[in-house]
Amino acid sequence: MIATKAYAVQDAASPLGPWNFERREPGPHDVQIEILYCGVCHSDIHQVRNEWGNSIYPMVPGHEIVGRITKVGDHVTKFKVGDLAGIGCFVDSCRQCDPCKSGEEQYCVTGGASTYNGYEMDRKTHTYGGYSTHIVTDENYTLKVSDKLPLDGVAPLLCAGITTYSPLRHWKVGKGHKVAVVGLGGLGHMAVKLASSMGAEVTMLSTSPSKEADARRLGAHHFALMTDKEQVKQLRNKFDFIINTISAPHDYTTYLNLLNLDGVMICLGVPPEPSVVPAFNLIMGRRSIAGSLIGGIRETQEMLDYCAEHNITSDVEVINIKDINTAYERMLKGDVKYRFVIDIASLK
Amino acid sequence: MIATKAYAVQDAASPLGPWNFERREPGPHDVQIEILYCGVCHSDIHQVRNEWGNSIYPMVPGHEIVGRITKVGDHVTKFKVGDLAGIGCFVDSCRQCDPCKSGEEQYCVTGGASTYNGYEMDRKTHTYGGYSTHIVTDENYTLKVSDKLPLDGVAPLLCAGITTYSPLRHWKVGKGHKVAVVGLGGLGHMAVKLASSMGAEVTMLSTSPSKEADARRLGAHHFALMTDKEQVKQLRNKFDFIINTISAPHDYTTYLNLLNLDGVMICLGVPPEPSVVPAFNLIMGRRSIAGSLIGGIRETQEMLDYCAEHNITSDVEVINIKDINTAYERMLKGDVKYRFVIDIASLK
Repeated sequence: MIATKAYAVQDAASPLGPWNFERREPGPHDVQIEILYCGVCHSDIHQVRNEWGNSIYPMVPGHEIVGRITKVGDHVTKFKVGDLAGIGCFVDSCRQCDPCKSGEEQYCVTGGASTYNGYEMDRKTHTYGGYSTHIVTDENYTLKVSDKLPLDGVAPLLCAGITTYSPLRHWKVGKGHKVAVVGLGGLGHMAVKLASSMGAEVTMLSTSPSKEADARRLGAHHFALMTDKEQVKQLRNKFDFIINTISAPHDYTTYLNLLNLDGVMICLGVPPEPSVVPAFNLIMGRRSIAGSLIGGIRETQEMLDYCAEHNITSDVEVINIKDINTAYERMLKGDVKYRFVIDIASLK
Repeated sequence: MIATKAYAVQDAASPLGPWNFERREPGPHDVQIEILYCGVCHSDIHQVRNEWGNSIYPMVPGHEIVGRITKVGDHVTKFKVGDLAGIGCFVDSCRQCDPCKSGEEQYCVTGGASTYNGYEMDRKTHTYGGYSTHIVTDENYTLKVSDKLPLDGVAPLLCAGITTYSPLRHWKVGKGHKVAVVGLGGLGHMAVKLASSMGAEVTMLSTSPSKEADARRLGAHHFALMTDKEQVKQLRNKFDFIINTISAPHDYTTYLNLLNLDGVMICLGVPPEPSVVPAFNLIMGRRSIAGSLIGGIRETQEMLDYCAEHNITSDVEVINIKDINTAYERMLKGDVKYRFVIDIASLK
């Protein structure tokens, strides 16, 4: 077994603190990864605090993992010792259902194996995430990471990156499309970077004028203040797609009216209070509201390769693991541009 | 001017009664139609009673019109005297916006000219609908009607038919698709007939066991009772499409959960109280909710030709125009299988 240092929570009310546990020795198809960086996703906070009601303790969060391979199983063909590697939101799936067979393991009908706060496919072995020194994973659920990009900025691609990349590809967003991004956080800033890199004309929709400069720096061509009724009126029927990354309660209706004929609003955030959706606003313009969940292994690899080719990373603030609890408080205030990433060297 | 007999309402509180008015003489591009049958759409009631707040009186309802051409303008090329013809929900549009230019006049950005309770494109001349002996329309907004089908059953195709046909075509519904239809009324019974004729496997979802026999007769392969939790559970992740025709208040969430990966619920009815839509139920399975509005002229013609070829009409109950107020009361109780159609001979 592999002695592993980590930060964990022991129950919903306690802060994260040091914890030691053991990972399995790599099996024939496994790789052992020395973790270098782990991004901090807003869903880490939800799960640490049991806000979704499904938390298992002790919990080691983290599903935006980048590291280096230190050992490979006898049958591993895709990786060798010394390779960079990444792990995203899941480490296994049933491999037999239709979504798994078509490479969309994120929609595995059995639910797959979450990287943390879940169980391996034996449904007994608890999974622990990337706020830790090592992880052991099946090579088929492990991503190749290029050495062209700074690794701290690559880590958040494994969740925030693929969550925005996948719908942009699924709906074939590109040149000629007018795309609005709602919410400029971990997901939103990646949506702006990726959509503009794909050739779309990107508008940032925000309630805060202070976001404009940054939105433009990240690649937005336009900025509109949703608190200004005149600006909102000018945007009616304008967009082919709206990438809605907001997780706070909000009314979808205002955004629906900004969609052009056949426009689609793609929701990536889960507000605790769902919005109403008036059918009239869908019918007038054959508009849609859709949702999208991370991406499959094949598409996550494609996204990492795309980002390496186009020099795209997440904007990050690298932290020492002992500052993780403070980082959570700052995230809850929206005080991060745009993702905290833990330097796992600080854990050793 | 053409003396025209009609049934009209003079204000929101009064019943329909006889009214005489004049239609314009056909211009160079117009046809004059002697109306034979006019379907009674639920939206007629909403507008007669000003339930949408946009009613103009006097109002002659009716936008499911079938008749025979009695006169054509000098430049008319598509029709000759004696031809059968149909008029649907609109009689003109701006002809210049992107939707108009692409043959989707129903989404005309200026709003087009409704067949009744609206204005011609001069935005001054009040339009009057098909509860009348004659109508004069531009040949480009007039449909060709086959003589192969009973004309009373054809009339409702001009609204109920195209409203269900258009989304089935837009989303390319056909063989291999599992389609659920919610609500067995004017729209729902057409959705069952059309979807099954296109090769889809159709399931009727209803809260009323009494609907099963009719649903199967109309072409449904399966029937499920939404009041039976066990049946609903069995249908989770089952459907590629749900055609939701319900106009009464209801919760979309239950239906969303029945959609498979990439499944789409297409809403055709406008409940007075909009449903909430939890983002989680969209995200898990990349599901969508969409709306769709009637169809353009080209597609309406395609639908009429398709129905003639496949021997599809609406199930109708033909009424004398003097019974129209009683028919409205029966419609409000759901007591019609499945569309009232006025025999306009009763008006002469």
